[in-house]
Amino acid sequence: MRLSRYFLPVLKETPAEAQIASHRLMLRAGMIRQQAAGIYSWLPLGLRVLRRIEAIVHEEQARVGHIPMLMPTLQPADLWRESGRYDDYGQEMLRITDRHKRDLLYGPTNEEMITDIFRAHVGSYRELPLTLYHIQWKFRDEIRPRFGVMRGREFLMKDGYTFDVDRDGALHAYNRHMLAYLRTYERMGLTAIPMRAASGPIGGDDTHEFLVLASTGESEVFYDQAVCDLALGDREVDHDDPAAVRAVCDEFTQLYARTDETHDEAAFAAVPEDRRRVGRGIEVGQIFYFGTKYSEPMGATVVTPDGARVPVHMGSHGIGVSRLAGAIIEASHDARGIIWPEGVTPFHVGIVNVKQGDMAADSACDGIVNALTARGLEPLYDDRDERAGAKFATMDLIGLPWRITVGPRGLAQGLVELTCRRTGQAEEMSPEAAVARVAGIYARA
Amino acid sequence: MRLSRYFLPVLKETPAEAQIASHRLMLRAGMIRQQAAGIYSWLPLGLRVLRRIEAIVHEEQARVGHIPMLMPTLQPADLWRESGRYDDYGQEMLRITDRHKRDLLYGPTNEEMITDIFRAHVGSYRELPLTLYHIQWKFRDEIRPRFGVMRGREFLMKDGYTFDVDRDGALHAYNRHMLAYLRTYERMGLTAIPMRAASGPIGGDDTHEFLVLASTGESEVFYDQAVCDLALGDREVDHDDPAAVRAVCDEFTQLYARTDETHDEAAFAAVPEDRRRVGRGIEVGQIFYFGTKYSEPMGATVVTPDGARVPVHMGSHGIGVSRLAGAIIEASHDARGIIWPEGVTPFHVGIVNVKQGDMAADSACDGIVNALTARGLEPLYDDRDERAGAKFATMDLIGLPWRITVGPRGLAQGLVELTCRRTGQAEEMSPEAAVARVAGIYARA
Repeated sequence: MRLSRYFLPVLKETPAEAQIASHRLMLRAGMIRQQAAGIYSWLPLGLRVLRRIEAIVHEEQARVGHIPMLMPTLQPADLWRESGRYDDYGQEMLRITDRHKRDLLYGPTNEEMITDIFRAHVGSYRELPLTLYHIQWKFRDEIRPRFGVMRGREFLMKDGYTFDVDRDGALHAYNRHMLAYLRTYERMGLTAIPMRAASGPIGGDDTHEFLVLASTGESEVFYDQAVCDLALGDREVDHDDPAAVRAVCDEFTQLYARTDETHDEAAFAAVPEDRRRVGRGIEVGQIFYFGTKYSEPMGATVVTPDGARVPVHMGSHGIGVSRLAGAIIEASHDARGIIWPEGVTPFHVGIVNVKQGDMAADSACDGIVNALTARGLEPLYDDRDERAGAKFATMDLIGLPWRITVGPRGLAQGLVELTCRRTGQAEEMSPEAAVARVAGIYARA
Repeated sequence: MRLSRYFLPVLKETPAEAQIASHRLMLRAGMIRQQAAGIYSWLPLGLRVLRRIEAIVHEEQARVGHIPMLMPTLQPADLWRESGRYDDYGQEMLRITDRHKRDLLYGPTNEEMITDIFRAHVGSYRELPLTLYHIQWKFRDEIRPRFGVMRGREFLMKDGYTFDVDRDGALHAYNRHMLAYLRTYERMGLTAIPMRAASGPIGGDDTHEFLVLASTGESEVFYDQAVCDLALGDREVDHDDPAAVRAVCDEFTQLYARTDETHDEAAFAAVPEDRRRVGRGIEVGQIFYFGTKYSEPMGATVVTPDGARVPVHMGSHGIGVSRLAGAIIEASHDARGIIWPEGVTPFHVGIVNVKQGDMAADSACDGIVNALTARGLEPLYDDRDERAGAKFATMDLIGLPWRITVGPRGLAQGLVELTCRRTGQAEEMSPEAAVARVAGIYARA
């Protein structure tokens, strides 16, 4: 993409209304624009990040056999009257009346609707286990929306729902989600720690939140520093093998890590003192097993192998997709701007032409863009007629992990510069070598 | 995908509420489920089609240099008060009040919001031309939602907005959209005829609708039969060359083709009698040039090369993404079910194992699935323990364009059967040949 033909409205000033780094940087980098309190447009650069996050979520759900579908944003109130949550949910639920005076609501979550779909179409244990999920816009009418997309009102969420004939099956589904989520966050460059949590309005006793450590997080967290060293890495886990999946979950949950809601001073005291940490975290996902909380009142039953009819055991499992864009920035930025992890960067590499209009520089940049594109990479080429300093500042602000700098002086010796955004380290090499190096980095990422 | 692990709730009965083929077939094939009047869930098979349609729309927008972004579903009423449309829009607009008593609405279209984004960030002719688009859920509170996703209330639409410094630029953007749309529809296997239209609540004089001929269409259409023979095919058109783009548009609009809204009996009478046709059509897109209708009242201006400040010339350009799923079925089905064009099929090929449990058949099916997957294709393998007849009926209903039938009798001679859903023609060949044939078909599609 040529920046001269793109729409990247970066801001010079720091917006006064933004209290935290991710909100400031998303506004300054031209990623989002607020349209109403807690309601944002995703400008082109922001949308690219959102789509990369979504793609990783989808890929990791597919890897463990979960099936994508899509429920609508609006729901009939009657479904929520069946579960009893219509009145319970309070003012966070956006209630709507249509032209025929029917009560609708903008879905904050989808337990009722998915249970309705299940009861209409599934009747036998033979059709289980089943996991359906969607990634859809939701709405919670927060009383004080703030922190940009981190606590917005209209937000994008992945929510998945599991259906099993019994508690054992449902717990395997729960563990399988934990495994998939751990891999999802790792691919985004995040350390997201599963912590036992309180269930809130979804219900259920078994629930873990996933928290990314950040000083601006809304939750206080207490943890054993050793949890930060855990990583799935490349290991293969058979997602159909309950013992194998459970072993991974045990590994990631045996060390102490709790939010203030479930914190246990006595257990925390047992953590070796030099590893005891108190900090703050951003919740980026949560998994729940809640048994028959919805299937019983809504009549979602299956026939078991011995002919009995039982309510299906369910769980629900969510990832805050739009919130992750903010959380990743909270975890990865510096004074100059965002530092995208390779997994979610909006463009793979920035090309800065320090002397636009110089024939050699222009033609070298075109060549590099073409070579990168031919390798399946998406570069952002700053071809504007601007000072080099302004171009560097823009690249640093929007945070592409790698930058190739092209100028007449280096080209006279056949060299361009490859710079790592995170470390600032720069290295001179031929254009071909720079392209190969960048391609190699993303082939491994 | 193995059907035994998928969620494909096909219906045996024809749903009584569905009046047209696409609605009946989408329900029967387990593509959608109605959650409220005109509000649907997209079940897994339906979502796959929707995503393929979206992908084609995105690719063709990218091809002509348009930039994707994403605006929210909810909008502040104040923006619409600026343009004067808040009161004009009538009961089709879903009006919402939040907990703080602020007026919101569920966006039926986005002219106001994109104009707001433009005026906040763009101020010079140097930044033009600019085309921004998004694919987002919208809501129109139709008084009588019907025909399934063809006239739903919550619907997915691509809407693009063009910004140019003058009328000439805006008309080129208009023509460029026509070119992109023609290619978009062709890739979906549709003949969508551009017809001069009336502008309705968007405003503007220059507008064309794109209509797919179908007896269930809501518009009466009058056309020269020769328009149905026009095709873009593989031709390359430089989308930055106004004359080249305009020549294509002239070619596709010079023959008579009008809806009842703009029909001109005298002009129609000039069409050779043997080519004069009266029929019905489904609107699947519309393009508008409306000049400064929004930029003037909302103050979206740019400085021109000679230093003047003028309101920007705008257009808006929409494709009904969710509606297209229905329109394609209306145009392509038979008594047994849907017939997907290769460009939008939810799976590339179906595999029917006529004797599940037979070792040779099972292993041949696995091999075919693996070979297809290795070539980047997505097969749907019916591995259920069902009669062959039931499997064939399901495959015919869901309409995959190609089917490979595997059974012990054929395998004894090293043969499987490749069947074309559209023609019913079947041919025996080796499994390897069947895989190669299907791969070849999609490489050309």
